[in-house]
Amino acid sequence: MTRIALGIAYRGTAYWGWQSQPNGQTVQDHVERALSQFADEPIKTLCAGRTDAGVHGLNQVVHFDTSRERDAFGWVRGVNRYLPPDIAVQWSAFPGDDFHARNHARRRRYAYVLLESPVRPAMEAQAVGWVFRPLALQAMQDAAALLIGEHDFSAFRAAGCQALSPIKTLSAIDIRRRGAYWRFDFEANAFLHHMIRNLMGGLIAVGQGSRPPVWMGEVLASRDRTAAAPTFAPDGLYFLGPQYDAERQLPTHTPAMDWLP
Amino acid sequence: MTRIALGIAYRGTAYWGWQSQPNGQTVQDHVERALSQFADEPIKTLCAGRTDAGVHGLNQVVHFDTSRERDAFGWVRGVNRYLPPDIAVQWSAFPGDDFHARNHARRRRYAYVLLESPVRPAMEAQAVGWVFRPLALQAMQDAAALLIGEHDFSAFRAAGCQALSPIKTLSAIDIRRRGAYWRFDFEANAFLHHMIRNLMGGLIAVGQGSRPPVWMGEVLASRDRTAAAPTFAPDGLYFLGPQYDAERQLPTHTPAMDWLP
Repeated sequence: MTRIALGIAYRGTAYWGWQSQPNGQTVQDHVERALSQFADEPIKTLCAGRTDAGVHGLNQVVHFDTSRERDAFGWVRGVNRYLPPDIAVQWSAFPGDDFHARNHARRRRYAYVLLESPVRPAMEAQAVGWVFRPLALQAMQDAAALLIGEHDFSAFRAAGCQALSPIKTLSAIDIRRRGAYWRFDFEANAFLHHMIRNLMGGLIAVGQGSRPPVWMGEVLASRDRTAAAPTFAPDGLYFLGPQYDAERQLPTHTPAMDWLP
Repeated sequence: MTRIALGIAYRGTAYWGWQSQPNGQTVQDHVERALSQFADEPIKTLCAGRTDAGVHGLNQVVHFDTSRERDAFGWVRGVNRYLPPDIAVQWSAFPGDDFHARNHARRRRYAYVLLESPVRPAMEAQAVGWVFRPLALQAMQDAAALLIGEHDFSAFRAAGCQALSPIKTLSAIDIRRRGAYWRFDFEANAFLHHMIRNLMGGLIAVGQGSRPPVWMGEVLASRDRTAAAPTFAPDGLYFLGPQYDAERQLPTHTPAMDWLP
């Protein structure tokens, strides 16, 4: 048996999230069916970060074991033949038999892309979030600064979250603008369920002036989900992927990252 | 009766092109149904440039006449309520009763976005064309330069093209790259049916070294469709919209133009 790692890109719009479900309509279901067909043996995968319905992945990483022998690009090309147009393996690697896609991930990165316009999107619908009231950069940056570091993020955690601990280390939130689009980049050791969509709800409330920046610190300190803003739409959320120790030599960039604003 | 102009953005993937068809599944069919519902009277539109199935529009312009009185943003917000998520009016204006969306367009602009990668796209599938062999910029620029000016473009014209004349003035082809994505910008007084997709087939053949740049000039001079490269995929083609005389004061920019690479 050989352990293999894959980097996978997908548009989440048509799927019921990453994680397998009985209906078989998740990204994991499609990936495992394609892998099993190509390898001609049943294959189960384990991923770096499960994504919700409607959330996109640009470098989701999975690992699995197989007795089939193929070279690295053979796995990419071969598995992609069995995947729908909105899911594609971007790279494969032999990371060592002890490699674990979830446990060995040191950091995870997400981006949220938001259209600020009086009019809703069309071409990029379901690939961006949308606000029609203008956002103030400085207020959002002031609020974001209060979130950086190791904190109990219970106030931004979904009820069904399965994480062992609500304490996570948020190392960066970068906010910038290109034309009508805002981009928010988040980096942490790990994220709670709905954490970024809940943080986005809060940052937008601050950016539109409904709340002052200090309110974000108060919500965080409360550890009370009911104190925070509503969960924002999944449409603009992209899992940019995990980062592993450099010795693993696994890619952290895929072409679609150049596609985002 | 008042003449109204609208700027419309759409993702062409799900539709049978712009122009009305008996099946009712074109962008024009959806726009006219939404307009007729909002105005509560039957409305027919005339557009600046018909697009093929799978081609996107970022600032398609139409005009129509109506007896309904609404302010400019009322038309935007009202009609969008009746449109599907991948079609949205971006602006409306009162351009004068003599305004004609097609006949008054002085120039039209299109962009083609192309992914160059060994692996096919997923997130951005159907929003970009794809080549897996590398492209050479200088060769494509040399070939493009041979196309600039007033020419008989019959070699790049689809069999069913309804244009009165194959003679068009191509004023610019700009080619640039951002990361894994190439962007080709075309500007002309008007384009023939399939002209840009046929030009793209040729530019890619030159960029990949299958043909020398001078071949593009030979194909143009031949006026023979069978001499040119195959029609390239519609997926990466965007109608950026028409340009009118400045006195019309019609918008030439929509937010989605900031979304493209």
